[in-house]
Amino acid sequence: MLRPGLLLLSGCSVAKLTDRHIQVAAIVEMIHNATLLHDDVIDNGLQRRGGATVNSLYGNESAVLLGDFLLSKVFKMCADLQLEIIEIIASASIKTCEGELRQTIQKRDWRLSEAEYIDIITDKSAALFSSSCELGGLLSGADETEIGSLREFGLNVGIAFQITDDLLDIVGDENKTGKSLGSDVDKDKLTLAVIHLLRTVDKNERNIIKDRLSNPSLNKEALLAILNRFGSLEYTRNQGMEFIDKARRSLSSLSQSEAKTALLGVAEFVAGKAGC
Amino acid sequence: MLRPGLLLLSGCSVAKLTDRHIQVAAIVEMIHNATLLHDDVIDNGLQRRGGATVNSLYGNESAVLLGDFLLSKVFKMCADLQLEIIEIIASASIKTCEGELRQTIQKRDWRLSEAEYIDIITDKSAALFSSSCELGGLLSGADETEIGSLREFGLNVGIAFQITDDLLDIVGDENKTGKSLGSDVDKDKLTLAVIHLLRTVDKNERNIIKDRLSNPSLNKEALLAILNRFGSLEYTRNQGMEFIDKARRSLSSLSQSEAKTALLGVAEFVAGKAGC
Repeated sequence: MLRPGLLLLSGCSVAKLTDRHIQVAAIVEMIHNATLLHDDVIDNGLQRRGGATVNSLYGNESAVLLGDFLLSKVFKMCADLQLEIIEIIASASIKTCEGELRQTIQKRDWRLSEAEYIDIITDKSAALFSSSCELGGLLSGADETEIGSLREFGLNVGIAFQITDDLLDIVGDENKTGKSLGSDVDKDKLTLAVIHLLRTVDKNERNIIKDRLSNPSLNKEALLAILNRFGSLEYTRNQGMEFIDKARRSLSSLSQSEAKTALLGVAEFVAGKAGC
Repeated sequence: MLRPGLLLLSGCSVAKLTDRHIQVAAIVEMIHNATLLHDDVIDNGLQRRGGATVNSLYGNESAVLLGDFLLSKVFKMCADLQLEIIEIIASASIKTCEGELRQTIQKRDWRLSEAEYIDIITDKSAALFSSSCELGGLLSGADETEIGSLREFGLNVGIAFQITDDLLDIVGDENKTGKSLGSDVDKDKLTLAVIHLLRTVDKNERNIIKDRLSNPSLNKEALLAILNRFGSLEYTRNQGMEFIDKARRSLSSLSQSEAKTALLGVAEFVAGKAGC
């Protein structure tokens, strides 16, 4: 799992770590957890981080309300922060919701392009990671260029993370990922591997694949085989790696530090997740 | 329906109405709407304010995300407000969630007392109305005593509103209320009329009633008849009126103004709703 609060803390050297960093790291972490609680309700997820989800243990009602409770607590925790910080957090939070809403609207839209998909995951996932890195720099007194590099790093690592996460939803093992898988295809949510497949095959094959994807009794093995045959899994892994490389390059102008090493470690972690 | 944004605007004289009032009224209104969107998901509500609910039209997914989106927007709209205002809004929002969570936890708790019920609805409903009135005064430069009166008014009118709303869930007509009814009893959510009934009947009857209430095929007419026989409907109406009276008295120290008349009109509206 990629945690925005840890990303924020990675963005500053330990020597400069203040209570403010911890407060803002807790805030972005709570926003992230609120969205996960609601995501699990929406996707009827049973497992998360190797444990049972709140919705599966206590029902949707508790999971929705607990997410709202976290968001309200965040709201109060932000009250004494400076305007600039609140605006970054709030904008990331809005983008997360906008991305999720766009994804919902575009379900079953078989024409969804790769660019649109990247746009959606940039909002729904990468924005919060990007803002977390930006906030880490801002709270540590980094200069404009450094803050820009950190923001760029978070954005690219966030996109890579979501591409990988979506790939694992198709090819992953629930025991290893610790969360429920397969819900994207079940819910007609198009992700990169399938987008690549649909644009690679010819028209007849495309129609057959669309029919199969809409069929609730879809054979997952058959889907994997066809994704493999047309190079869609490999393409997706490579695209993930492209964003990991971009993330690494974003940090190249920063001088060597413990914080930079920690962030590069995060990029390695995401790259390793995809088995790249 | 009782709208916190309108309550806020009623709390100041029109002459003193500023853009700030409108901004904060929009904020509390958006928080209220976010909770209604999520409530309708939780209760599977099909109707709200005489129209189809978002969950019934576009699914739970869209309704949960739209609620989150509103909360995120609120977050951003608060960024430039003064600390005191943000804290009042955030505290009300936290209380709303806490009240809802407590209500969820205490479902099927047949020993729930009237005091506990009042406590829950104070948090889940009245807190936001109370804060709206308080904010109206605060933004209008009212003094401490006036602000206290307004806060007290909102609290009492909010409690009366929820008692009445819960009563209408049992005795109301969907065509008149414009929203789905009967979900409290269906969901084993204890509200005042049933709490009164359970404490009024003897032990044997109590066990029979509890069994009936837990039965999904409960005959609503029979429930109404027994609530009527033991004076539970009348008791609930009277309790609602007690809080309306308290609300009216809360305003007694305020000098006559257009704003005061508007607020008293809100109390009348809530009283009329219960048919008191």
